[in-house]
Amino acid sequence: MTDDAAFELPVIRLRPKSKPQAIRHGFPWVFADEAVLDRRTRNIVPGGFARLEDPERKPLGLVTVNPNSKIVARVMDGDPEARIDGAWIAARLSRALQMRERLYEAPFYRLVHAEADGLPGLVIDRFGDAAVMQPNAAWADAMAEEIADALVQVTGVSTVILNGQGRARGLEGLGERMEVIRGSAPEAPVQVAMNGATYLADLMGGQKTGLFFDQRPNHAFARALVPQGGTVLDVFSHVGGFGLAGLAGGAGRATCVDGSAAALELAQGGAAAMGAGDRLEVIQSDAFKALEAMAEEGRRFDVVICDPPAFAPAKPALEAGLRAYERVAKLAAPLVAPGGYLGLCSCSHAADLTAFRNVSARGIGRGGRRAQLIHTGQAGPDHPMLPHLAETGYLKALFFRLD
Amino acid sequence: MTDDAAFELPVIRLRPKSKPQAIRHGFPWVFADEAVLDRRTRNIVPGGFARLEDPERKPLGLVTVNPNSKIVARVMDGDPEARIDGAWIAARLSRALQMRERLYEAPFYRLVHAEADGLPGLVIDRFGDAAVMQPNAAWADAMAEEIADALVQVTGVSTVILNGQGRARGLEGLGERMEVIRGSAPEAPVQVAMNGATYLADLMGGQKTGLFFDQRPNHAFARALVPQGGTVLDVFSHVGGFGLAGLAGGAGRATCVDGSAAALELAQGGAAAMGAGDRLEVIQSDAFKALEAMAEEGRRFDVVICDPPAFAPAKPALEAGLRAYERVAKLAAPLVAPGGYLGLCSCSHAADLTAFRNVSARGIGRGGRRAQLIHTGQAGPDHPMLPHLAETGYLKALFFRLD
Repeated sequence: MTDDAAFELPVIRLRPKSKPQAIRHGFPWVFADEAVLDRRTRNIVPGGFARLEDPERKPLGLVTVNPNSKIVARVMDGDPEARIDGAWIAARLSRALQMRERLYEAPFYRLVHAEADGLPGLVIDRFGDAAVMQPNAAWADAMAEEIADALVQVTGVSTVILNGQGRARGLEGLGERMEVIRGSAPEAPVQVAMNGATYLADLMGGQKTGLFFDQRPNHAFARALVPQGGTVLDVFSHVGGFGLAGLAGGAGRATCVDGSAAALELAQGGAAAMGAGDRLEVIQSDAFKALEAMAEEGRRFDVVICDPPAFAPAKPALEAGLRAYERVAKLAAPLVAPGGYLGLCSCSHAADLTAFRNVSARGIGRGGRRAQLIHTGQAGPDHPMLPHLAETGYLKALFFRLD
Repeated sequence: MTDDAAFELPVIRLRPKSKPQAIRHGFPWVFADEAVLDRRTRNIVPGGFARLEDPERKPLGLVTVNPNSKIVARVMDGDPEARIDGAWIAARLSRALQMRERLYEAPFYRLVHAEADGLPGLVIDRFGDAAVMQPNAAWADAMAEEIADALVQVTGVSTVILNGQGRARGLEGLGERMEVIRGSAPEAPVQVAMNGATYLADLMGGQKTGLFFDQRPNHAFARALVPQGGTVLDVFSHVGGFGLAGLAGGAGRATCVDGSAAALELAQGGAAAMGAGDRLEVIQSDAFKALEAMAEEGRRFDVVICDPPAFAPAKPALEAGLRAYERVAKLAAPLVAPGGYLGLCSCSHAADLTAFRNVSARGIGRGGRRAQLIHTGQAGPDHPMLPHLAETGYLKALFFRLD
């Protein structure tokens, strides 16, 4: 793209009743009903760029456009003359890297958290020498090669995996992709150290980018609740996030329940790498059935954590999702030893904190227990938010003490 | 009180349209318009006890009554035959102590956090061998002697200070008290270790109980943000909560701003006890004026924290309070070095998280900066909440990274 071409970018203008002030203060999205697209902009290839103007034709910045998405434009840069190329991407990556390097000793973290890191729709997780990127907006999908080059240049990683799966891409009209676009795929699961535990992440075959970095502070909080030699139950455990953290904290025994044999095998591998293989019990089962069975057996644990998949990913699923969260709370509460702790997590965008807390408290009550709420956890600081989008803070972890 | 007398306790009955189910599930309050008081209950001495019944006269539990308060009754025990005496209080204290001993290595914490610890309106902070109690409900004020005896018995503290000051007592119709009711007052400020820092708490002359334990996890988060040898500015510092935590984390210099010379003297004493007296700068000043003056001088800090008093303690003060929070954000933002961090705290009940976040983000924008929100902190787990009252979670600490 030459300077002349940039100058001739198509234009999107906000409608008179929209709020240009919000964009000026950092709100990054333009919804389809807020904008007037000229003929050139309507025909723009998804992921192309345009200049955004307020109703009085004053410039608001450079945006990426996707006429197929409800979010018709996303702000890339407040400078309408900005040129989105490898150097621009590298500058944003450097900013993101600088923040993570101040927060974490080892290079295992979410490196880019989309809009909040100034890279709309782009997610990148770093696993030491390898990175997994999720280009969930059209511009990032189209510029995947430039992003990979900048990533290698800025961070020094040798492997870049493009994981183009998941719901967000569908909303942008993007198909599925799964490619190793730089270097070669790790031959074995990658070892990741967090909170004193060792996790195994399968970067090619796992869920999302292979590991959930977002739960790191909640793993740490749960770890501190387990008494020395005590027991921890990790339901919907995936690769053992809470269970292995409990073992690292001195639990005598951890029990991981998950429906996926592959995830439980990684949990066992992680425990073995920690020298705690004999203290991990794994149960491959539907979580609801496992909770009911353990209640019938009269089993009790010092700490019980339930971290289910998003039961309410979007608004149409909200009612059913909240019922499912309440059922988890009701079935899990009886398994907590007197004076023990229950952690209930939700990664549903549509279920806000108040709604999730209410159904959790009701579920515990229906499970026959009284509770104190001692902590409300969230995603770690490598998952920053734009203040204007903070309502969407998706991860909620409620920690209760039960009588 | 004999068993016979308990049986003859007066009765409060919920009105037909109230929600007895909420009480059954743990909601602890009955508002004045929800209850029918019989003649005996209307004449009850504030802090006396009664039995609570649902509209069908089924028992809901034992309550303490204050006809002078908007909260006419508070649930003491789900068992309507419970006897509120020293043994009952000691059992509740034991439960509270057990939880804190699991969470903290040293005996410095909020031991009792009112309703959430089953002791309505009663707050107790523990400072090693001494405890400071705030009886903010009539029953606790009337039974202060029994509470002090139980406290000595359960925890082994030798000093109990009754701090009967503050807004909450006025709402209950209680006057001011300040007494040493067991043992003797410490001759010097008490040393409190938190997050590697040493604080000095003046148990007799300080604000509230002498130290704010609730900010402990937020001090820890701020400490981790300070680069080695970097600078931290702690505005409304009180005894140096964030500033001394920064010094403990390796800050080269901390600057504490507060209006109180006595508080700053304690901050200096704490820094001296840490061997960091030469790294602490104190400025006794109105905080707004100090922020403006430092901006004019062009001063910049790696981490800036503002932890003002409650600008919006109750709803009538909400609008003015939110404007004050916005002004703090606007004045503080320019003092943050590029890539540095800004922590903004609110302990206002009336300003909810969303409102506080919005004015903070707007203030930062008006201060000329763009921000990512990396963490939302709250009070530590020694400040538990009843899930049904969790909306009132008063302490909010927003941590932003500024470009």
